[in-house]
Amino acid sequence: MTNQTSATDGFVFNQTMMRIKDPTPSLDFYQNVLGMTLYQRVDFAEMAFSLYFLGYPSNHVEEALPNSAADRSRFTFRQSALLELTHNWGTESDDTFGGYHDGNADPRGFGHIGISVPDVDAACVRFEQLGVEFVKKPNDGSMKGLAFIKDPDGYWIEILNADSITALIGEHGTLGH
Amino acid sequence: MTNQTSATDGFVFNQTMMRIKDPTPSLDFYQNVLGMTLYQRVDFAEMAFSLYFLGYPSNHVEEALPNSAADRSRFTFRQSALLELTHNWGTESDDTFGGYHDGNADPRGFGHIGISVPDVDAACVRFEQLGVEFVKKPNDGSMKGLAFIKDPDGYWIEILNADSITALIGEHGTLGH
Repeated sequence: MTNQTSATDGFVFNQTMMRIKDPTPSLDFYQNVLGMTLYQRVDFAEMAFSLYFLGYPSNHVEEALPNSAADRSRFTFRQSALLELTHNWGTESDDTFGGYHDGNADPRGFGHIGISVPDVDAACVRFEQLGVEFVKKPNDGSMKGLAFIKDPDGYWIEILNADSITALIGEHGTLGH
Repeated sequence: MTNQTSATDGFVFNQTMMRIKDPTPSLDFYQNVLGMTLYQRVDFAEMAFSLYFLGYPSNHVEEALPNSAADRSRFTFRQSALLELTHNWGTESDDTFGGYHDGNADPRGFGHIGISVPDVDAACVRFEQLGVEFVKKPNDGSMKGLAFIKDPDGYWIEILNADSITALIGEHGTLGH
């Protein structure tokens, strides 16, 4: 059943934030490998960090991204399903920086983001050709038809298909309650 | 500019996964405090874990959630902006379980999820009345008009408004490139 509380009307799951070591490979990966669009970049020079907001325009509205900075910002922060990448300046050239924690080894917490795709096998063939690192290929293990890849910081990204995962889940799935 | 690679047509940012200690307070929080809808629950008894997929139906399609388990699953895994909560059975009653890592102390990585709301102050007054823990109230610090709250596991949730954050960003925002 859907929620009945009018106090939360208009709430939108806008963003998922992950820290990145270096925006150059991360923007290349999310824009060119995963096909996201960079909606907004925000630089805070006095605090030495930048934010990058990426998403799939086709996931929500079929309208052009606004071209003025303020209109673009108002648009960005009303959307759902954006990825926010935080770059603290300097990590990209700091040899002592140990990298960020992906959450899947102790201490665990956050696990992954997931992209639903029309064809997991075709997507993964292309990822292999592009040199993407895999945690799990589609035919590895018992969960056939879904994959996990790594982004440049090592964060896990599930690659799934709605029909395949429905077949996998089988009798395990129940409706929300 | 939007991405030009047809190989990623149809990609959807479907899910963000976080592990939770106990589904009872977490489902109460995400459904009743944040107003999300539970789309799908998946139980894997042989592996002793359950998955809960939640989202805002109003963020994408204005159609009823399908009522058969398979149709519900195919629907769920085509949506954008879902939260996936993973519950490894037993943690909720294990006194030795130390809890999950929110990613904002060392080792850092994932930072937060963010909810865009029509009125940050009104949302936060209600959160206070409901006993929600705050990391930052809307008027704390220099970033006026945005808040951070904690979910039952301590994960940070930014509460933001598109107009307020546009005013805050001011000249720091630039278009994607």
